[in-house]
Amino acid sequence: MTSNLLASQVTFAQESYLRPVPFTQVNIDDVFWKPRIDKNRLHTLPHSYHLLQTTGRLAAFRLDWEPGKGGEPHIFWDSDVAKWLEAASYSLANVPDTELEAQVDEAIALITSAQQPDGYLNPHFTIVEPEMRWKNLRDNHELYGAGHMIEAAVAHFQTTGKRTLLDAMCRYADHIAATFGTGPGQLRGYDGHQEIELALVKLYEVTGEKRYLQVAAYFVNERGRSPHYFDEEAVRRGDNPRDFQHQTYEYNQSHVPVREQKEVVGHAVRAMYLYSAMIDLARETGDGTLLEACHTLWDHLCRTRMYVTGGIGTSRHNEGFTADYDLPNETAYAETCAAIGLVMWSQRMLRLDCDSRYADVMEHALYNGVISGVSQDGTLFFYENPLASTGQHHRQPWYDVSCCPTNIVRLLPSLGQYIYATNKETLAVHLYIQSEARVYVGEQELTLRQQTNYPWEGAIALRLQMNAPTAFRLKLRIPGWSRQSTIKVNGEDIDLNACLEQGYATIGRVWNDGDEIQLDFAMPVERVYAHPAISFDVGRVALQRGPLIYCLESADNPGALENMFLPMDAEIEASYDPQFLGGAVIIQGKALRYEEDDWAGQLYRTTPPHPVSHTMRAIPYYLWDNREPGELRVWLKSC
Amino acid sequence: MTSNLLASQVTFAQESYLRPVPFTQVNIDDVFWKPRIDKNRLHTLPHSYHLLQTTGRLAAFRLDWEPGKGGEPHIFWDSDVAKWLEAASYSLANVPDTELEAQVDEAIALITSAQQPDGYLNPHFTIVEPEMRWKNLRDNHELYGAGHMIEAAVAHFQTTGKRTLLDAMCRYADHIAATFGTGPGQLRGYDGHQEIELALVKLYEVTGEKRYLQVAAYFVNERGRSPHYFDEEAVRRGDNPRDFQHQTYEYNQSHVPVREQKEVVGHAVRAMYLYSAMIDLARETGDGTLLEACHTLWDHLCRTRMYVTGGIGTSRHNEGFTADYDLPNETAYAETCAAIGLVMWSQRMLRLDCDSRYADVMEHALYNGVISGVSQDGTLFFYENPLASTGQHHRQPWYDVSCCPTNIVRLLPSLGQYIYATNKETLAVHLYIQSEARVYVGEQELTLRQQTNYPWEGAIALRLQMNAPTAFRLKLRIPGWSRQSTIKVNGEDIDLNACLEQGYATIGRVWNDGDEIQLDFAMPVERVYAHPAISFDVGRVALQRGPLIYCLESADNPGALENMFLPMDAEIEASYDPQFLGGAVIIQGKALRYEEDDWAGQLYRTTPPHPVSHTMRAIPYYLWDNREPGELRVWLKSC
Repeated sequence: MTSNLLASQVTFAQESYLRPVPFTQVNIDDVFWKPRIDKNRLHTLPHSYHLLQTTGRLAAFRLDWEPGKGGEPHIFWDSDVAKWLEAASYSLANVPDTELEAQVDEAIALITSAQQPDGYLNPHFTIVEPEMRWKNLRDNHELYGAGHMIEAAVAHFQTTGKRTLLDAMCRYADHIAATFGTGPGQLRGYDGHQEIELALVKLYEVTGEKRYLQVAAYFVNERGRSPHYFDEEAVRRGDNPRDFQHQTYEYNQSHVPVREQKEVVGHAVRAMYLYSAMIDLARETGDGTLLEACHTLWDHLCRTRMYVTGGIGTSRHNEGFTADYDLPNETAYAETCAAIGLVMWSQRMLRLDCDSRYADVMEHALYNGVISGVSQDGTLFFYENPLASTGQHHRQPWYDVSCCPTNIVRLLPSLGQYIYATNKETLAVHLYIQSEARVYVGEQELTLRQQTNYPWEGAIALRLQMNAPTAFRLKLRIPGWSRQSTIKVNGEDIDLNACLEQGYATIGRVWNDGDEIQLDFAMPVERVYAHPAISFDVGRVALQRGPLIYCLESADNPGALENMFLPMDAEIEASYDPQFLGGAVIIQGKALRYEEDDWAGQLYRTTPPHPVSHTMRAIPYYLWDNREPGELRVWLKSC
Repeated sequence: MTSNLLASQVTFAQESYLRPVPFTQVNIDDVFWKPRIDKNRLHTLPHSYHLLQTTGRLAAFRLDWEPGKGGEPHIFWDSDVAKWLEAASYSLANVPDTELEAQVDEAIALITSAQQPDGYLNPHFTIVEPEMRWKNLRDNHELYGAGHMIEAAVAHFQTTGKRTLLDAMCRYADHIAATFGTGPGQLRGYDGHQEIELALVKLYEVTGEKRYLQVAAYFVNERGRSPHYFDEEAVRRGDNPRDFQHQTYEYNQSHVPVREQKEVVGHAVRAMYLYSAMIDLARETGDGTLLEACHTLWDHLCRTRMYVTGGIGTSRHNEGFTADYDLPNETAYAETCAAIGLVMWSQRMLRLDCDSRYADVMEHALYNGVISGVSQDGTLFFYENPLASTGQHHRQPWYDVSCCPTNIVRLLPSLGQYIYATNKETLAVHLYIQSEARVYVGEQELTLRQQTNYPWEGAIALRLQMNAPTAFRLKLRIPGWSRQSTIKVNGEDIDLNACLEQGYATIGRVWNDGDEIQLDFAMPVERVYAHPAISFDVGRVALQRGPLIYCLESADNPGALENMFLPMDAEIEASYDPQFLGGAVIIQGKALRYEEDDWAGQLYRTTPPHPVSHTMRAIPYYLWDNREPGELRVWLKSC
């Protein structure tokens, strides 16, 4: 932890919304996340840096590429560098590292050296296609790259106090603010891949400069208006707008103005980044119409278009949404970045509305569809996270479009920001992760120690430390998956029904130094059923324990997984196996499979197949594909 | 019916194998096939002719195409013309038609005018790429086109007595015989798409010229030898053999010599045409090694790689076989031509071995995977015949590669040849189709009248007419699907167990004019189960009644078909609906579906979904996609 306070804490101390406690104030030391954060720092960060170097992504900022020379800088290579910088900055805040800090400083020096006199900064459109600058916002990702570099600059400043990148990005943001807008001579455009909007809100929060918030609002408000900017710029380029590869502007959520959007559509990552910016603006500007749009979109997503793993986005074709209940398992796209985007959106929804439905989704995505994206050793990554596989789908060290690895890399070291939130009279606990947090409730500084073996066990102990007794409301999330919960304060039972507010046990009192709270969530294995309109899952069951969705892999279950049935009444047992991939709770039960030996060469027959008993072994979904290749199934046949 | 006797009947009267009674001797007048044969004649034949004209397939034989002119003759356009000619010839034998006969004569005049002085005949390699003649047997289909034209010539001669095309094709066959072989200066090649082999056997049968049989045998024996001819010719062309699009010579069954082939692999139509030629040669040459190879391949196909509809070939990629038990439903390729090829192979297996397992497969493919290939009105065709669909798969009027429509067109008017077979002491009934056949058993001519309402009812009456009492064995196939069969001769019960030989009730006696045989096969609806290694069908059931596989369509079953379960003990009833698409037996029963109304916006929950009763309605598979678009399912969930 460093001593840098977030500017936002100072600037916005008066707001009544809950502010996340920054990860720099939270020290995670649990059994589940700490090893992942360490691996991320020790393996994934260096691995990513190595690939930024060897693929030419860093060198692109030298601007010495020439036609005919290999390694032409790609249009959004800058975003990978930016996300690594953001991740490295977070990591430096957690654990000082002079070598990493030198790499960061060197990279920033290189990046800022590539900035043009007017503030513009994108290697591809500086040296490869300079004539195309801002000419194809629909496809070219310039504002997307700018957004990620701004996020990196904010992170770098917040965690190191250094302004080098921040100042450069303010110049870039000023250039963007001058270029885009409704004024004379300005382009009335917006980005094809949203990201700049939420980044500008962050820049506003850290600098206090309102103009950045205004540009973010301009981008969000302008989106989807008629006549359509992407049509107009296509005509200006001499292109036929109808030739747009994805045919529909639902692809990038610009088919109608954002406040008229009622359904989550198109590219899932773009959607999540847009909705995150919408709720940011709702919070910062008090715009209730944006909040209402977010509520509608949230409900639509959660009611019709989300995988049971928290993965979102069905189709490889548009990397996104298709139709209600269209959630095939084997071809599920469920991009790692989209699940991370859902975590980002959920956290922002929680800031306005401390409702556990947001925290439930955030937790669910984190423990399932997000961390499935990285291997146990931290050097292999999924882009797609299917829920079934015949054994051909495996994590890769890197991708040509490598958004997912760098998104994981930046998420893990900043995980602390998702656990706690405060305002002047409230301390909320959203996630149960063993940690120690230094928080301010109003003016009062206090320390919250959380001890737990979550997600393997449902018992959590909280202990408060403070200089003086303080009155505030402690809000403790009761997970949506929990059906039997108890809370004790200093050993005394609390009546949960009496204090439940939007899924949070809310205990308002004068708290004293040394107060202890015990939470206990029963964690039986649950059978989960899908809405019957999800045709792929009809007659099937998924297994869940606590926040974790389970899966079957061939490594534990010989024979075809599709020839396995879990009877409705089969007993299922959970037990912790300390040897299993760093330790995990494994589920076992008696399943059935059809005998293959009594078919006597027949391929079809009129006698029903003969079921035989079989021990099924399920592991947490996030752990799949860490052993020998084989089949995967989340949804098991039931009978 | 015409009076043309098959030359084969004369030439091979001594053989002990069963000979199919030619369709020209069989008059079909049943409720099921007659309307299809009529539609084929009245709609499909003219439809095909129209498309041969409008697509340029016929005009290609004018040889007046020039570079830059549209409508470049495709390498195997000739095969579509040939199959239409074959079909038209069959149809003329059934029903004289002066207009059709004129079209045929005109087409033959045009075709023969395109024949080169050396006998060669393929428009593409005569005018578009003459330098490529016989240079790429692997890909270019020249021998395939030649084979179909030879089949057309044989059909035209057999049904009209005219030798125009037959003589031309003998010249072509002589050119082929001179070009290919093991002699000095000959090419040791063989065709990439098998067809020529079985055609040359037919040409041998009709002309009695042994050299055609020898060339057929050469092609079959040479196939798959090392060094590989397709490699050698590729090198001669300057191509890298490794660049072969399909990578493996399993694709065209030339990976090893045919007698070493133990598994059905590769392109399914090529496989069927090859196996048909292999068994032809086994019969005509007495080569037991070819028969043994066919037995092995037959068992492999039927035990591991055939759809329950009789469709074969899983993958669009190779239009063929993949792995054992890999029989997905929605992506099933199951090409119409492949099912027709299976009928061809089955019939040839039956000639050597009157075993009902061959007739069962032949019947099953005919009533399901073959006739599903054409719409009820005879003008729309399936290339692929999947067993499940979300509603996007529909028959088309024609295809760029239009092998399937013309294969259907030639099958239907010659259907009579599959029903009966004879040798000097046997008359076998393979199929139950109402018809009258004039047959020779040895020297004795007799008429067999078959009356039945098959496949809707299992009762069949046979009546013999002859000039004098005759001793022979009557072999009556007991269908594999029948579990309760009775036979009466002149009203007296026959003990089936005592007379069953390889699935045929075999009744040897002196038969008299007016003898009557009654067959009765109980036809309850049967539940069919798939081998558990077919993962796609585990926990599912198909419905069969008599030879017909049934399916569910949205048109009869509102709601998602995947949300429907047929309980193991649900009663199922069959009833004839004379109004339904020309009359058909429909199956109804009580199924279950999960209630969608009680989910209150939840997408997943831990309470099992609530099943409600629902009337299921199934129709014969071959009738699907004749009404409004919608879902299709052959394999229903069972519980």
